[in-house]
Order: sequence, then structure tokens, then C-alpha cells
Amino acid sequence: MLDELKRRVYEANMELFNRKLAIYTWGNVSGIDREKGLVVIKPSGVPYETMKAEDMVVLSLETGEVVEGDLRPSSDTPTHLELYRAWPQVGGVVHTHSPWAVSWAQAGRGIPAYGTTHADYFYGEIPCTRDLTEEEINEAYEFHTATVIKEAFADRNPMHTPGVLCKSHGPFTWGKTPEEAVYNSAVLEQVAMMAAQALTINPNMQPAGQYIIAKHFLRKHGPNAYYGQEKKN
Amino acid sequence: MLDELKRRVYEANMELFNRKLAIYTWGNVSGIDREKGLVVIKPSGVPYETMKAEDMVVLSLETGEVVEGDLRPSSDTPTHLELYRAWPQVGGVVHTHSPWAVSWAQAGRGIPAYGTTHADYFYGEIPCTRDLTEEEINEAYEFHTATVIKEAFADRNPMHTPGVLCKSHGPFTWGKTPEEAVYNSAVLEQVAMMAAQALTINPNMQPAGQYIIAKHFLRKHGPNAYYGQEKKN
Amino acid sequence: MLDELKRRVYEANMELFNRKLAIYTWGNVSGIDREKGLVVIKPSGVPYETMKAEDMVVLSLETGEVVEGDLRPSSDTPTHLELYRAWPQVGGVVHTHSPWAVSWAQAGRGIPAYGTTHADYFYGEIPCTRDLTEEEINEAYEFHTATVIKEAFADRNPMHTPGVLCKSHGPFTWGKTPEEAVYNSAVLEQVAMMAAQALTINPNMQPAGQYIIAKHFLRKHGPNAYYGQEKKN
Amino acid sequence: MLDELKRRVYEANMELFNRKLAIYTWGNVSGIDREKGLVVIKPSGVPYETMKAEDMVVLSLETGEVVEGDLRPSSDTPTHLELYRAWPQVGGVVHTHSPWAVSWAQAGRGIPAYGTTHADYFYGEIPCTRDLTEEEINEAYEFHTATVIKEAFADRNPMHTPGVLCKSHGPFTWGKTPEEAVYNSAVLEQVAMMAAQALTINPNMQPAGQYIIAKHFLRKHGPNAYYGQEKKN
Repeated sequence: MLDELKRRVYEANMELFNRKLAIYTWGNVSGIDREKGLVVIKPSGVPYETMKAEDMVVLSLETGEVVEGDLRPSSDTPTHLELYRAWPQVGGVVHTHSPWAVSWAQAGRGIPAYGTTHADYFYGEIPCTRDLTEEEINEAYEFHTATVIKEAFADRNPMHTPGVLCKSHGPFTWGKTPEEAVYNSAVLEQVAMMAAQALTINPNMQPAGQYIIAKHFLRKHGPNAYYGQEKKN
Repeated sequence: MLDELKRRVYEANMELFNRKLAIYTWGNVSGIDREKGLVVIKPSGVPYETMKAEDMVVLSLETGEVVEGDLRPSSDTPTHLELYRAWPQVGGVVHTHSPWAVSWAQAGRGIPAYGTTHADYFYGEIPCTRDLTEEEINEAYEFHTATVIKEAFADRNPMHTPGVLCKSHGPFTWGKTPEEAVYNSAVLEQVAMMAAQALTINPNMQPAGQYIIAKHFLRKHGPNAYYGQEKKN
Repeated sequence: MLDELKRRVYEANMELFNRKLAIYTWGNVSGIDREKGLVVIKPSGVPYETMKAEDMVVLSLETGEVVEGDLRPSSDTPTHLELYRAWPQVGGVVHTHSPWAVSWAQAGRGIPAYGTTHADYFYGEIPCTRDLTEEEINEAYEFHTATVIKEAFADRNPMHTPGVLCKSHGPFTWGKTPEEAVYNSAVLEQVAMMAAQALTINPNMQPAGQYIIAKHFLRKHGPNAYYGQEKKN
Repeated sequence: MLDELKRRVYEANMELFNRKLAIYTWGNVSGIDREKGLVVIKPSGVPYETMKAEDMVVLSLETGEVVEGDLRPSSDTPTHLELYRAWPQVGGVVHTHSPWAVSWAQAGRGIPAYGTTHADYFYGEIPCTRDLTEEEINEAYEFHTATVIKEAFADRNPMHTPGVLCKSHGPFTWGKTPEEAVYNSAVLEQVAMMAAQALTINPNMQPAGQYIIAKHFLRKHGPNAYYGQEKKN
């Protein structure tokens, strides 16, 4: 069932590991088949070194129940599912503990758009969520992790800013496909690193001007985008 | 004698090297056979590149005397032995000079629980010991290194916070097995790095809320843990 | 056409990737044939992993039109062309998003000559450009990126300071050949890293003395240079 | 001539490269045959990737003249020779531009003994030299680089503190052999990194207590040293 999507989700998970965005079991990627209403996700607590494509778990988007797979799905599954439910354009979701993104999340700060590397992929600040309340944590921690993410995007387009920092925790990213979600996770880590380093050089640094931010985002993603080749992204 | 434990302790030592937690001879792992009252530890000053499983040294937990092995045991052996004596649940002990953990130890500061990566493995602050006194250093330096560690855990459960920073020196970690002690050493290094980086982003950062810390520790280690697969840790 | 220059430009691009100065598609190298008035440059948005020498694009220096090649040239092509037009001694140009150089560019600060590593290749501060205006961005962003670079070199010799930081963006470097431009890109990244690290150690640090800066630059590049072997650079 | 020493000096130079203490041509190692009064050193400006053992240059300790070799010796040769002349116990000398040591040198600060990793190899602060004067730079820059190093050791034992930071430049280290000098170069880089990181964690950090510093240095290097194996260093 969904063998091709399982293979892609498996390879997207391995890409996290190969790019050093996750060590041990510290990351997970999912992908969705919107027509069938099924989500494929990494199993919980399985190390990348021994994981296989057939270990991927298939769940119902609607009920969250496991449809196929012998292993428990990632403990973060309720967050993934809720993001798919909220944002119909999303085709892949990633969670990691990549070090620089976690550092910003622990610092409790969104990453301002300090430069064009940021603006090439994220239009404006990458926000940091509020703290979950005691009630939210006790009731349904992973579900309400999506609640605070959705709040942070009340006035943002998630396809223009495909990532978020969960306070005291770490990043989630997404994209039209699992591969794009992983790409955005790698970009977020670079952007987080360069923003922190720039702060040590100039603690009074301001975000980049709005015109250059818009220029870079739109030359890649706008209707008149001219970056890259015609038939590609 | 204890060939299987020697092999495991040897491989745990090599894992330190392969994960870049130790260069040259800057780390050591031990394991214990509680039934026999014997400890297996890395020999002193032998580089990882040329070390073999049969070089591991076997000592008596009670007397500290070498029971088997042609080489001197690690100079840190008295610290390892004293931790095994103090804490019966500990099955493996690790000491390294991994850079970020050493940086906190040199700074003389415990690592606050700034986020969930920390809380997934360490419940609350990872403490930093007090300075040893002149008398302690002159009398029995390595033995009293354990003295100040035990003091730091007077009000802490060592199985819930399986690591410590020895002031001006570096980290010790432990676990139910040598492998788990090495795992905790790798986690400590990541946590130390991300805590320091977060401080450069937000020098006024506070520890994470108690509810999210408890949630993450208990979903992995509590009686109702639901992270990972059923038969696994 | 220009097969040898294409091969060199291709290999110079791969060197960016192999030295971790660029990930994904985040960098580009060009080279020029001054006699023919033709520039060879990386195609836009093509990842290093799959790129081939024959993918390089050939353009007219004068008109900027593509003379050969099925792919679109790098979106930064107008910047490259304008630097070749301004500075006849330049034989290769490089643009990257290498992390430490970008950090300085985002911080909006030129890199002072803090030491001899800097002075061995860059004579004096590596400048940071001004912001582009809204008009410049809207009219011809990549062309005017060269405008602000040229302004920063109004009183500087580009062959003595073969690099610049474009504010909120990242570095450009150049040299007598594409290979030298890549070399200068690698040096800039090291210099940017060490300058930022030195600032964390001594926030009140001053640039190095003028005599040692001059000595190092001139022992490598002056008329009486004595570094290296006689027949070599 | 001196084939065995050439091989050792060549391999010590390659070790600099393999341990990432030097890129391109940014480092050099020499060794001495005290009986013959001859020094073997890396040639100037030759990249590690293509260098061979037979490229090493042999010089007279007394006159500094090349005795054997087709290539020019390292431009830093006068510094090496002068250190051998000043300190008869030294058997190998190393110069690098390793990033963290350079950062301290650019910051113009000696590295205080913040911890035991430092004290295991360097007894007390690793000093930073004064600036060279204009006269010294113009007269004989590389010779007087040794002048300011020797001044910094007026009240220090160079065999107890086998390294120095040349202000605005970078580190020199030494040892009883070329291999030990490279080892000390690697240790210095780690120590420099951890000292700088510790400062970001606790800007008010003080050096470690004298008792623990003495204990660690002497358990490795004192007359009653007990670290390592009996027949080994």
C-alpha cells in the first residue's frame, strides 16, 4: 500500500540524517496522499541506521488511526496530521532537533529576515510559537503543538513561510512535497545559524529592507519568477 | 574473563571516538558486572586508533585492584568505581572532554533545562560540581572527583539526570549500560551546544516551563511512556 | 565552443561545493575569455550533484546575450558581467552564500583587517556595500548589485582587495582566474569566521597594525615578494 | 640526507592537513637533528595535496643556509631556527593558522588556564606576544617574530608551556619531536575553542584554581606522573 510514497518518505527521512539535521531518532518526515486521505510517517524511536522503507506507518488523515504498519508511528504524529488538516496545500511535514533552529526555539525568538538567503525561501520572519499552557500539555500535547503553530500563522501564509519554531522545543517545516519540506528544513538550519552569527557581529542589527526581501522571494516564487530553469521549480 | 563485557566496553569507547566526543586519549568508558563485582575500563593513555578489546582492564569494585590486564587502567578509574559504589542502578560510566560540555564546566555553570531535547534525557538542570579543595586534590584527586559529584546529587536522582559537569574539568555521564552512558554523553554534548548558542541569541533566556519539561521526560521515561516501540527502550 | 574554459569554470563551481562554500544551488562561478569578449557561467538553479561541464552557459560580455547553451544562466549574471566590464584585470568572479561571510553581510559590516591571514590576501578592510535603493531594486536588481560594489571600490584597488560583502546578501570575490576567485572565496570565509570569533573573545579589538598588514600583503604580492616558489604565484 | 627525519617532518606536515589545522599552504612543521646541527622544514607555498617527503628542505641551524633541496624553505624559517637556537630541548616546531588559535591571536589575548584540558599540556596561561615594532618588521620580520616569542617566555619554561600566540598573526607550538609539536598544535586549537566558548557562557569566568591546574599538569608530566602506560610518554 502506497509503496512509492513510503519510499519517498523513507528517503526524505534518510536525507535528514545524511545532512546532519537529525542524529539518533531526533527527526521525522511525513508525506500525504490527499486523494486517499492517507498519511505516511516515520515510526517512533527507530534509528536511521537500521530503518527500512517498509517500516513507514500509514495513517488515516481523518481519524489518525493506523491503517498499515507493525510499528507505532512517530510520537509527533498528531502535530503532523493537524497541520495537514489545517493547510490543504501542504504535501510533506518535517520535525527535527537541528541545533541552530533549536537554539532559536529555546531562546524563544522568531528569526527575523536578516538577509536574502532567508528571503529566498521564507517571506518575512520565521515565527516562534507561544508556550503551551499546562492544560494544553496535559490534555493533548502533540495535538496542541499544532494549535500554537496555527495561531502563529493566523496572519501568515504557510506556503510563503514554510516553517516555524516551537518554543522551548524545535522546528517544524513543510512544503508541497516531503522532499521540499526537508529542503526547507535544511534552509532553516542555515538561516538560523547565519542569523545567530550575525547577531554576535552586530548585536544591534536590524532586519533587511523590505524591498530586497520581496525581490528575492518573488524572483524565486512570484508569478514572474526568473530564478532556475523554465521547467523546474 | 568477561570477554563479552570487554567487547562492549571496547566498542563503547570506540563510539566516543567515532562520534567525535573524544580525540587522542581524551575519554574513557567503563562497564560493570554487578554479580561478579568487577568493573571493565579503558586502559590509560592508549589511543583509540590502536586499542583492542583485549586491552580493557578488569578491576575489583570493592578494592579497586586490577584483576586482569597488562595495562594500567584509566587514571580516572577511582571516580568510576566510586560512582558504581554510590549508585547501584548504574551499569556504565563515561568521561570525556567533549568541547561544549567542557566549555560549560570551565564556565562553572550547570546547564539549565532550556528545552525538550534536554528534557527528553535529563530531568532538570545538569549540575556543575563545586571546586575540589586543596586537601581533596592532594589527598586523592580522582576519588574526590566522585565526592563532589555525589554532593551535587544529594537532592537529585542520578537515573533521572544521568550526567554532571566537573568544574574546570569536564563531563561524566552514566546509564544502565555502557552503551546508554555513551548515548547520554552524546546527548549532553548536543544539549550543551544548543544551550550556549541559545544564550548568544537571547542572553536573558529563562529555563523552559516545568510542564513541558515534565511532559517530555515522562513520555520517554515515565510509567506511561509512549515514545518508541513497545519492546524497546 | 570554449571547451577548456567551460571545463575550468565547471571545476571551479564544483570546488565551491566540495569546500562547503555552497550547498544546493547557492553559489556560482564565471570565467572570461577577454580576447573573444565571452563569459562562461554556471546555469541557474542547477544542483552541483548533477551539473556537467557542458551545462555551462556562454554569454557576450558586451550585450549579455546567451551565445551558447540550452540552460538559463545564473540569475546573478548581470552582476558578474558588470564587474568584468568595470575591472579589466579580473578573469573570474564568484558569488556564494558561505555562512560566515553572509553573517557579516547581514550584520552590515565590513571585515576589518584583524590579522595576517586576512592581510595575506586582502589589503585592508573587506568592505560592505550600502543598501540598494527601492528604485535600483525595481529597475535592475542584479545590475545595480554591481553598482553598489563599484561604489565601495571607488577608493580601493579591486586586485588588492578581491572581495566584497553585499549588504543583507552575501559575498562576491574575484581574481585573475576562476580558480583564484574560488581561492579568495575560501579565504574570505575563513577570515570572516576568525574575525567574528575574535570579536567574541575581545569585543573591543582593534584592526591589526598597518606595518604587519603591509608586510604580509607585500611579502606575497609585492614586487619583492618572497613567499612561495619562484615560478609559482 | 636525513631521509628518516624528512619522512617524519613530511608526515607531521600532513597530519596538520588531515586534522584540519591547516588548509591550502597555511602551516609548516620543522624538525631538528641536534647532532648534525641541521633543520628539516616544509618548502614555502607548496600545497599539502601534492607535497612529497623529498620536497623537504634541509638548512644549517647556525647559518640558516639551505644545505639540500631544490625548493625555497618556508618563509617562516627564520622564526623556527631562532626558537631552536634559544631552546635546546626543542626538537620540533609548528606554525599554523588554525582558526580558534588565530582568533585569540587577533584578539590580542593570551589563553588563561580555564580547565584541565589546558593544564594537561600547558602549565598556566598560553601567552600572546606584544606587537612587533615598525623597525622590527622592516628589518627582519620573521627573525623578530622569534624575538617577541622569546620575550614572552622570559619568565616561562617553554617545555612546560609549549605554545604561544603571535599577536595579530597566529600560533606557534613546539615539542621534543615534530610529532609532539603537532600534537600540541592540535591541543592548542581545542583549548582555544573551548576557552572562547566558555567566555560566551560566562563572560566573567576566572581561570581554574592553581591546585587543579598543577595536579593535572604534574600527573602527566611531573616526576611522579601516573597517567598513561609505564614505557610510554
